[in-house]
Amino acid sequence: MRILVIGGTGTIGREVAKALAVNHEVVIASRSGGVLRVDIADQESVETMYREAGAFDAVVCTAGSARFGPLDDLEYEDFLFSFRNKLMGQINLVRIGRNYINDNGSFTLTSGILAREPMPGASAISMVNAGLEGFVRAAQLELERGVRVNVVSPVWVQETLLAMGNKMLEGMPAALVARAYVASVTGTMKGTVLDVNDFV
Amino acid sequence: MRILVIGGTGTIGREVAKALAVNHEVVIASRSGGVLRVDIADQESVETMYREAGAFDAVVCTAGSARFGPLDDLEYEDFLFSFRNKLMGQINLVRIGRNYINDNGSFTLTSGILAREPMPGASAISMVNAGLEGFVRAAQLELERGVRVNVVSPVWVQETLLAMGNKMLEGMPAALVARAYVASVTGTMKGTVLDVNDFV
Repeated sequence: MRILVIGGTGTIGREVAKALAVNHEVVIASRSGGVLRVDIADQESVETMYREAGAFDAVVCTAGSARFGPLDDLEYEDFLFSFRNKLMGQINLVRIGRNYINDNGSFTLTSGILAREPMPGASAISMVNAGLEGFVRAAQLELERGVRVNVVSPVWVQETLLAMGNKMLEGMPAALVARAYVASVTGTMKGTVLDVNDFV
Repeated sequence: MRILVIGGTGTIGREVAKALAVNHEVVIASRSGGVLRVDIADQESVETMYREAGAFDAVVCTAGSARFGPLDDLEYEDFLFSFRNKLMGQINLVRIGRNYINDNGSFTLTSGILAREPMPGASAISMVNAGLEGFVRAAQLELERGVRVNVVSPVWVQETLLAMGNKMLEGMPAALVARAYVASVTGTMKGTVLDVNDFV
């Protein structure tokens, strides 16, 4: 398969790209690195990326930002940013990409454990992650030509926690998180939320 | 209790207001009718409504629009409208209202069955409903003074289906849907998604 990994320069994306590259051709896209440049929050940029990508069989997205912070600090603009970026950015990849992807292709997006197990400060992120899961369940019903869409829900990533200096949580190594993405791309699941714990 | 019912002129809202009015003081707010006028998508309007409302113990929202339509027809602006209105509108009610509500008060919002059981054409609505449920679970963790937030997930409403001329589905009468809202306001649940089927 020829697979676009968007966010393929990030902590999870690098491991997903590495795991997929064993058996497939991987093309990395990101905002500031990679072979293809894309800002997922900008639908023109997404359209351009797909036009320039050539034929592909799968899209994996590990990109997307959302704002973390207490309700007292989160402004309307923080929710809007989170919507436009991690949520609508990934929806853009499906809305636009379904016109370009090969038959029987797949989209694999990224939500996160905060959709189901929130913590203080996560109100915008929990909204984004849960909203994306709702979109995926619904959008699958309208995808044609055998195209699939799934969303992987990662837990805290070990490398990210170490970089943050957090010693309270152990987290899951990104290489293990990557397994759920590989399962989504190479398997037959569709319209599904993949819990990374089920794939380690 | 003194309870603001936002969207209290709509199909569900009327029945919620009627049921709550048996034992409580109900103040109806809506965009075009009611004692208080509010456009939930406009945070200035929400702030004004709360300033003018006087003291209150509970907010119920049955207002909020989201766009239904096939993925082929839904533009970016349709997702953005749905976000700004049914999703962010209800989040505005909590973000802003938590500074005005009495101790031990409650917010009861409205999502819908499409969050969990989608249908073709529901990708924006499923996103909104699921996103709101994610917000509610997270926001509860930061509410103080005993304030609670829940979200009711209605099924198709019988009166709405009849008005649409849909004879395929029976739906649930709005008066039965209203019971979940009453349970949320008068009970002790918090951070919870209430399935209306559990309250009939």
